[in-house]
Amino acid sequence: MSFQATFQMDSSNGPGVPPETLNDIISFFSSAPPLRDDLNISRKLHEFIERNFSSSGMSPLLSYFSFCILIKSICNGYPRRIVCVTSGGTTVPLEQRCVRYIDNFSSGLRGAASTEYFVKAGYAVIFLHRRGSCQPYCRLLPDDSFLECLELTRDSNVQVHQTHCQAVKNAIRGYHDAVEGGFLLKLPFTTIFEYLQILQLVAKSMKSLGSLGMFYLAAAVSDFYVPWESMAEHKIQSASGPMDMRLTQVPKMLSVLRNEWSPMAFCISFKLETDSNILLKKADMALRKYKMNVVVANELLTRMEEVTVITSNERITVRKDKNPAYDDVEKPLIDLLVERHSAYIKESDTGVTSEST
Amino acid sequence: MSFQATFQMDSSNGPGVPPETLNDIISFFSSAPPLRDDLNISRKLHEFIERNFSSSGMSPLLSYFSFCILIKSICNGYPRRIVCVTSGGTTVPLEQRCVRYIDNFSSGLRGAASTEYFVKAGYAVIFLHRRGSCQPYCRLLPDDSFLECLELTRDSNVQVHQTHCQAVKNAIRGYHDAVEGGFLLKLPFTTIFEYLQILQLVAKSMKSLGSLGMFYLAAAVSDFYVPWESMAEHKIQSASGPMDMRLTQVPKMLSVLRNEWSPMAFCISFKLETDSNILLKKADMALRKYKMNVVVANELLTRMEEVTVITSNERITVRKDKNPAYDDVEKPLIDLLVERHSAYIKESDTGVTSEST
Repeated sequence: MSFQATFQMDSSNGPGVPPETLNDIISFFSSAPPLRDDLNISRKLHEFIERNFSSSGMSPLLSYFSFCILIKSICNGYPRRIVCVTSGGTTVPLEQRCVRYIDNFSSGLRGAASTEYFVKAGYAVIFLHRRGSCQPYCRLLPDDSFLECLELTRDSNVQVHQTHCQAVKNAIRGYHDAVEGGFLLKLPFTTIFEYLQILQLVAKSMKSLGSLGMFYLAAAVSDFYVPWESMAEHKIQSASGPMDMRLTQVPKMLSVLRNEWSPMAFCISFKLETDSNILLKKADMALRKYKMNVVVANELLTRMEEVTVITSNERITVRKDKNPAYDDVEKPLIDLLVERHSAYIKESDTGVTSEST
Repeated sequence: MSFQATFQMDSSNGPGVPPETLNDIISFFSSAPPLRDDLNISRKLHEFIERNFSSSGMSPLLSYFSFCILIKSICNGYPRRIVCVTSGGTTVPLEQRCVRYIDNFSSGLRGAASTEYFVKAGYAVIFLHRRGSCQPYCRLLPDDSFLECLELTRDSNVQVHQTHCQAVKNAIRGYHDAVEGGFLLKLPFTTIFEYLQILQLVAKSMKSLGSLGMFYLAAAVSDFYVPWESMAEHKIQSASGPMDMRLTQVPKMLSVLRNEWSPMAFCISFKLETDSNILLKKADMALRKYKMNVVVANELLTRMEEVTVITSNERITVRKDKNPAYDDVEKPLIDLLVERHSAYIKESDTGVTSEST
């Protein structure tokens, strides 16, 4: 059964998605190259959600760290909450045998840092990330980590350079605890086609979690693309003067994610602008239009210092933590979002969801 | 003194560059954002070339590896040959405060592998590479090296996972020997503007090397760009239907590199196509048009298996080495190019250059 077929069957019943958006979405997915490895991704997702949604999959050999996370999960109530963190930029191929593509600037630092804090807060994280972007537990290491951090001793043993020793140990410990504890599933993408196809698989798998599921959509998703069938097969030749390109708008998947794929999940989207004059207005619009629970508004130049968290009745400025142990804006941001998610779960349990308020 | 000013002064005297190309080049550089850190790059280049062009800068404490390279250099005759290897793809920003850009697909694997073999052959290498692309001595390590290769022992020491132990040791040894021996200078770029500005600095610095200098231009350079002054300042908004773009051709810098910046250097350019029917024809054209000494023709799908080396009187297919110690096409390719470079130096010394044959 092909991916396109799956999409069309489901979306024909989709309530709440405007018909013109639905047409654009169908046209987007039917023009996309088939997702490689979709069965394997589905299997991994199924196992990951199964393991975290029931306690049966817990490893009997828990490290101290895993034990702490388990306790947090119990305090939050089992089954564990699961968040899908999207991170990094998507590419838009300009040729079928791709040599050139349009890319969105994003280091993936926000998504990587947030993943670490979500794991710490007791969440299981599906980290849907751009290949080669910043990875959780690696962000405090220098670029070219191997070359900068490691050296050989006289007797040819590998050792970590003194100046990076603590950072490297923390990175290894954090990563192995998260992966071996079963709290972190990493799924890579490159193109806008792969990203949206995998996001659909994830969102449909998370539907059964209801309000315990969260989407933290920090990836920088392309707004424009070239439909696959109208794309040049071979490398575009440069001999004949300037090149004119017409790019089609990528349909807004947020409405179908919210209305159909995972309607009860707690949804956080991001709005990045370079012009502060239009940022909050556009963030407000996104909140209403796509029925997000939260929109995080950030400006390109100051995004690592502060962000504005916008909900239907709040506008909260979150600034970089002054605690030197957490020298970033993600720690207080995730603290706030976890709190709001808890309130949302409680409301959902009593039948009063944020959406209906 | 600004970079643009430098370019205009020199190029006004440029012999052999067609006037229309010269105009395009002047317009490209004058529209480029100023290169940050140009003084620092110039200083590094000066020191690197000085150290390798005279034997005075050699460290008195040589490792066995450095000693072997020294012997090779002596066999090749001092001063040491210097090659500028360019590697990875350049980006074309679509907005001044850049959120979106066009990128060229290139992992940088070819440039990284070639750098290692050039160092082994006794060359000093200026590795002009795309930030984040594949680095020399790292290509045999898994992605996410830290996460995959390292683990903590029970007493919290870092150790390399058994399966990767030898690869990691080789990588560290190779890298440290090359850097500490002074045979490797790494200069990063991201945009097409940075790439061509730094290439100009490198080429002018290498002019004094005459035929001992080599350019191995493996970077995937954008053919089209948006001139800085006609670029949107802020993020392009997606609200208003499809986006039309007009891209200007990037002027061919090979002619000015060959005719003016470094006229005596041994120049190797690369031609990548996805369509094998036009590949060799286009490679031949590039050889004649830009007076390259060698063009390496490679096809997207088979480029890691074989390439065709084209000179004015030869067409040699180079295939992946069958020696399991060098499971790549770069080893025989660099062997061949070093041999041709030696012949070129000899011809230059006797006044008969390849260009005049």
